[in-house]
Amino acid sequence: MRTFFASLTLAALSVPALAADKAPVTSPVTPNDVIDAAPASDWQRIAPGDLMVMDLTPDAKGSARRVVIQLMPAPFSQGWVGNIRKLVAAHWFDGIAVVRVQDNYVVQWGDPDGETPGKARALPGGLAKPTEQDYVARLDERLLSKFMQRSQEEASRTASIPTNPDSYLRGGLTVFDQGWPLATDGRTGWPVHCYGMVGVGRNLSPDTGTGAELYTVIGQAPRQLDRNIALVGRIIAGMEHLSSLPRGTGTLGFYETPGERTPIVSVRMGSDVANLPAYEYLSTESASFAAYVNKRANRKDSFYIQPAGGVDICNTPVPIRVAKR
Amino acid sequence: MRTFFASLTLAALSVPALAADKAPVTSPVTPNDVIDAAPASDWQRIAPGDLMVMDLTPDAKGSARRVVIQLMPAPFSQGWVGNIRKLVAAHWFDGIAVVRVQDNYVVQWGDPDGETPGKARALPGGLAKPTEQDYVARLDERLLSKFMQRSQEEASRTASIPTNPDSYLRGGLTVFDQGWPLATDGRTGWPVHCYGMVGVGRNLSPDTGTGAELYTVIGQAPRQLDRNIALVGRIIAGMEHLSSLPRGTGTLGFYETPGERTPIVSVRMGSDVANLPAYEYLSTESASFAAYVNKRANRKDSFYIQPAGGVDICNTPVPIRVAKR
Repeated sequence: MRTFFASLTLAALSVPALAADKAPVTSPVTPNDVIDAAPASDWQRIAPGDLMVMDLTPDAKGSARRVVIQLMPAPFSQGWVGNIRKLVAAHWFDGIAVVRVQDNYVVQWGDPDGETPGKARALPGGLAKPTEQDYVARLDERLLSKFMQRSQEEASRTASIPTNPDSYLRGGLTVFDQGWPLATDGRTGWPVHCYGMVGVGRNLSPDTGTGAELYTVIGQAPRQLDRNIALVGRIIAGMEHLSSLPRGTGTLGFYETPGERTPIVSVRMGSDVANLPAYEYLSTESASFAAYVNKRANRKDSFYIQPAGGVDICNTPVPIRVAKR
Repeated sequence: MRTFFASLTLAALSVPALAADKAPVTSPVTPNDVIDAAPASDWQRIAPGDLMVMDLTPDAKGSARRVVIQLMPAPFSQGWVGNIRKLVAAHWFDGIAVVRVQDNYVVQWGDPDGETPGKARALPGGLAKPTEQDYVARLDERLLSKFMQRSQEEASRTASIPTNPDSYLRGGLTVFDQGWPLATDGRTGWPVHCYGMVGVGRNLSPDTGTGAELYTVIGQAPRQLDRNIALVGRIIAGMEHLSSLPRGTGTLGFYETPGERTPIVSVRMGSDVANLPAYEYLSTESASFAAYVNKRANRKDSFYIQPAGGVDICNTPVPIRVAKR
């Protein structure tokens, strides 16, 4: 029953593709071949101070459930990211819970009593109040030139990376920059809602949320949320502990009884967690990454008959791994 | 804690959006408003004979786990669909199991002993042997004209339905036809790998699989599989019973021990199942569906600040519901 189906079509974090056994390292066949062949210099270490470690209560069998979240770098969403760092420092997240799991959409965690006057836990002082304008960032010279290059590649149809037009943005493009998937209209840029990205729950606009309530995407990229909600990071380990939780049966996938919720024991910054593995991502500015995206867009290994010729940005997960010692 | 986050941004099968309370039926604001306002004549009944009912063993709490699959209509994948009907008639699927769950990719079920000589359960006789050519179907006049119209709409940028270019297909377009998401190159068409679609596991090409091993998509649409694997249907109820299963820890997400597998008690055609609800889908040829897609692409309700202006086909689930009676 161990059919090879999909054995050559895996996301970056999967095991090495079986095809790797057949292909000389000098001519990688699959995206995983490219990842395996990437030189150490193409990998970028993620600073532990940019990681958030969320420990859920153990599962029914007593196994630990640890989720590791990488926070978004400047220039994006820094108001919310700063708030989240304050909330972690205050141990504010300790004891809250996963309150909502909606299939093909999101897993959301926060204070179950957050809307009950007198019971809601108080937020620490000094939190920033970001505005809707902070959902996007003006492109600096480097990002602007990168976009211009991508735009010219698309126009000339000779892209070294398949830069197909973005379904969500007429005249816009998606780009990878410093390890993150972004979209841009040529003037501003913003992170996009891919599987595993982490965002800030909020009420109706103009409220933009504090960062005390977070969600992650567990289905098809809900790109309509781009530029409408702040993305503050992504899950780089332990995603399965959230994506496999029972779906909530209440409105919007909220759990209907407290017993269904998954308690969060603690959230700490990676720099404060003992024996946390070192994580690294494949530089999105490296030749290896360009080759990886091309392989994702043009599968020509023995499983495939018809290469697609393109791939959408959310089906191109940035390779992230535990650093090899 | 019941933040409105996403309450106005839900997939078709969700509860009515809260905004529905605010908007007069004459001017629907959200996609769900459009669904709620659609006249009965815009809904198409799904024939029970085109449904496959897969009952898993009850969950840990003893609750039933039923998954309902709608089979793909002609002209697509009919060789495999015919085989699957034969397998169901022979009760061949009864007693097999879910053997693989890979996060953000697929849940796969089949004969755990399928590759063990002497233990693999025999397939019924008379199964068809479809070829790679059967992954696509030549467009008939109706589909061809539909594509031409869509193509002109795209060219004129005045699409009544946002027909953004497909990231996976230069010069191609995605279309909805008779309730299904398709892609086309203008000459042939094929179903696309969206969340919940069901396909046929296979080994390396030119093997195209029999239909005895199936999978469903539980993450970002793996569109690279389009035209490389046969899609035979989609899950229209009970998806959460598969998508929330524990992820496998073996290679490719296969379970490492038999005890981790979820047994399949039985698979029957809907026409042979007592008291099965009647299901219906919103006609993709209806004005209501066109309005629904437009709302998915251009969210202007009070949650949103920046409508995307487009939406990808796999983020536009065809509304399916239990028929109101």
